[in-house]
Amino acid sequence: MTASTILQRLARTIEARKNADPSISYTAKLLNSSQDKVLKKIAEEAAETIMACKDNDREQIIYETADLWFHCLIMLTRHDISPEDILRELERREGISGIEEKLSRSQPNKTE
Amino acid sequence: MTASTILQRLARTIEARKNADPSISYTAKLLNSSQDKVLKKIAEEAAETIMACKDNDREQIIYETADLWFHCLIMLTRHDISPEDILRELERREGISGIEEKLSRSQPNKTE
Amino acid sequence: MTASTILQRLARTIEARKNADPSISYTAKLLNSSQDKVLKKIAEEAAETIMACKDNDREQIIYETADLWFHCLIMLTRHDISPEDILRELERREGISGIEEKLSRSQPNKTE
Amino acid sequence: MTASTILQRLARTIEARKNADPSISYTAKLLNSSQDKVLKKIAEEAAETIMACKDNDREQIIYETADLWFHCLIMLTRHDISPEDILRELERREGISGIEEKLSRSQPNKTE
Repeated sequence: MTASTILQRLARTIEARKNADPSISYTAKLLNSSQDKVLKKIAEEAAETIMACKDNDREQIIYETADLWFHCLIMLTRHDISPEDILRELERREGISGIEEKLSRSQPNKTE
Repeated sequence: MTASTILQRLARTIEARKNADPSISYTAKLLNSSQDKVLKKIAEEAAETIMACKDNDREQIIYETADLWFHCLIMLTRHDISPEDILRELERREGISGIEEKLSRSQPNKTE
Repeated sequence: MTASTILQRLARTIEARKNADPSISYTAKLLNSSQDKVLKKIAEEAAETIMACKDNDREQIIYETADLWFHCLIMLTRHDISPEDILRELERREGISGIEEKLSRSQPNKTE
Repeated sequence: MTASTILQRLARTIEARKNADPSISYTAKLLNSSQDKVLKKIAEEAAETIMACKDNDREQIIYETADLWFHCLIMLTRHDISPEDILRELERREGISGIEEKLSRSQPNKTE
């Protein structure tokens, strides 16, 4: 099974949890709670990823990065954004500029 | 081109930047600076993702999440971890438990 | 000079920078930029504090915590909140409950 | 009671919780758990402060900033750093440079 299928299937599984029992399903709980709960988890998982890197703990880095991406997928589901939208944005940057200088050149509506 | 190919190709492109000129390539700069620089970017992009969600700005959410994942890929490259390792961890959780309760059940070496 | 005076005087100094030249004064720049810029700095300084703790680098912990609090003061100035408001909230919690269990008992308007 | 006294007294109260029962005292629990637990709370409270600012909710900003500073105090206690050390660092910067340009000029041991 390709990586693409994994992300797509995971997004579909998350989507399907919308109507599951929040007392049983962690995903359903996050999908039905306030958005702030999900965003707090993203901050928390980013911090745990950072700490795993500082510990240079390979297994933990994989675990926490997966957690971070998983909670991103829940957030994206709440906004009806698919993983493909993110991958397409990553592809667009690479296509245009070989990734380089993407930050300054292609930001949509950021004002400083 | 499948999403899998995008992540894999992006990881290979990042890998290839290791020897590029850091004064030209943003990726090369991050690959050759202290790890703290990359980790700080992950914290920053997580915060920008959170703020885009609070603004309910769909285009910006896609942009910032792509940025967050991109900087995760740079961090993973530094640790010789491939995107597949993350996707496999996500798949493992889904396979075992339908995503649910993954946090408590399958965490490798976390002590509370 | 007491610690109280330091925080109060710092807040007054920050307040006074509102009309300074943003090209010269870092504080003026942050006071006159978008709020997101300041909030991003708070996320960044929190991450740097966390990394300094992981490094167990005492001097750096002091430096980064000061940075975090300093950027909080800039944020508070933008909202016309004084350091005393924060200290009063901390005092209130201690007064009521000996700090303990403050989180669950005294949160103003958080819904879960 | 001055703000200085509040911070000092709060630090002493936190210090005194070191030997309290972690099942009763939230502070004791954080003082006796792994440092990562405390650092995760700092990341979380920073994110909640950011979200309160995005909501422009004055009461919540005060509450979350107090929470952030409170968890910083717990972290400092674990490193035997007093609030005065942070305030002295803030005062030093103001004394030397009127706060301005402090970041670039006075950082102790940061290498890029």
